[in-house]
Amino acid sequence: MRILITAGGTSEKIDDVRAITNHSTGSLGQAIAKEWLQSPEVAIDYVTTKTAKQPPTDPRVTCHFIEGTTDLLTQLTDLLTTHSYAAVIHSMAVSDFTPAAHFSEAAFYEAINDALPAYDNQVTPALMAHVLTQSETTAGKVSSNTDHLFLVLKKTPKVIQTIKALQPTTLLVGFKLLVDVAEAELFAVARKSLLASQADYVLANDLTQISGNQHVGHLLTQEGQIGTGRTKAEIATLIVDTLRNDLRA
Amino acid sequence: MRILITAGGTSEKIDDVRAITNHSTGSLGQAIAKEWLQSPEVAIDYVTTKTAKQPPTDPRVTCHFIEGTTDLLTQLTDLLTTHSYAAVIHSMAVSDFTPAAHFSEAAFYEAINDALPAYDNQVTPALMAHVLTQSETTAGKVSSNTDHLFLVLKKTPKVIQTIKALQPTTLLVGFKLLVDVAEAELFAVARKSLLASQADYVLANDLTQISGNQHVGHLLTQEGQIGTGRTKAEIATLIVDTLRNDLRA
Repeated sequence: MRILITAGGTSEKIDDVRAITNHSTGSLGQAIAKEWLQSPEVAIDYVTTKTAKQPPTDPRVTCHFIEGTTDLLTQLTDLLTTHSYAAVIHSMAVSDFTPAAHFSEAAFYEAINDALPAYDNQVTPALMAHVLTQSETTAGKVSSNTDHLFLVLKKTPKVIQTIKALQPTTLLVGFKLLVDVAEAELFAVARKSLLASQADYVLANDLTQISGNQHVGHLLTQEGQIGTGRTKAEIATLIVDTLRNDLRA
Repeated sequence: MRILITAGGTSEKIDDVRAITNHSTGSLGQAIAKEWLQSPEVAIDYVTTKTAKQPPTDPRVTCHFIEGTTDLLTQLTDLLTTHSYAAVIHSMAVSDFTPAAHFSEAAFYEAINDALPAYDNQVTPALMAHVLTQSETTAGKVSSNTDHLFLVLKKTPKVIQTIKALQPTTLLVGFKLLVDVAEAELFAVARKSLLASQADYVLANDLTQISGNQHVGHLLTQEGQIGTGRTKAEIATLIVDTLRNDLRA
């Protein structure tokens, strides 16, 4: 039985020294790998970053390291077109945005001001598309010789959607993290993400309920609630037991 | 003999889950601490982040954890007004910029367009200062419901300048990292930073000459070149031996 786990958080390069990262440590992915390894016949492809917590050292686990969302998409496409997975647990925190361009204060104002007359003195998506073509290169290190730096970020591709697109019959678990919302809203948003990603399950969690090893997570389907874990180990057991049941059925 | 070492890289919060970080791992700071610990009578205050490589566990080392530039400034001010340091090695990679505001595409264009008529249809620092007052709150998690996200960053305070301001007689080593420049330019920029920071020494290095444990670093004064290290351990020895000599003199 081959399983694919993604864990940790992507890192989106601003320049050669700076990046946008997120707080994901990879601990939950580590716990999920540990839980799967209780099945003797499992083989795990584990996609993560060099800075994340690593899965147990075990001949049944193969690590694949990525940095940004583009790497991740390439790596997953490669794996999903090479192997057939019984289940995919996509716990990696994938950045929604990646740097598209950056401007010093003077360069940004000048590029907008030069373009304004041609656009009826209105900043519009078309004007900004033109301005973005004027951006400084992202090679080397962003100069610090400006009071303000303008960083324009663009949407990243929805990596999770490629999973079911490439392997429609795999069991897919997605993750949804919100910050300080009511449980009803958390569940509604998580279920909406299920539809978009075609995932079978979503683990819904709220950052305000994560602290050290305390980690409240609700495993949901489109209609139901499978259960709630209160630590990373409990969440890992909940997810892996649910998938094991499905795979036995 | 009390020594202050900063190591690792700051992390500047964008929102509750995202941050701007840099590639600094803290390995060089770790090597410098290890080298100092060969002096039996040393006491080290070590300022770093939770994600950086940590110094050797030793009763002579006290760790102080920070996240962003503001934390770092508070922590250093606290230490420098409490203890007297023989030397300060400021190897932490401090972000030049920190998030000041963020806008969805629609909100950014609307805020600029609303302000344009009052500013002769020109984007100016004054117009942008007004626009920044309209920014969305940074509480919670930035919504991903926009094609582009505009992140406005502002300059951080020059933390290193507070060190000599608070302790004029301490020996201070600064660090300057550039990317892919000629050695003459690297030395010139590093020496310019010496003047601004009032540091006694600067370790000048270029990212293209750092890879794993290979790490070329030149220890410079305003006029001279003390030496060059080719690994992190060599750089650590070069810095600590130079300071030990000065302190014996």
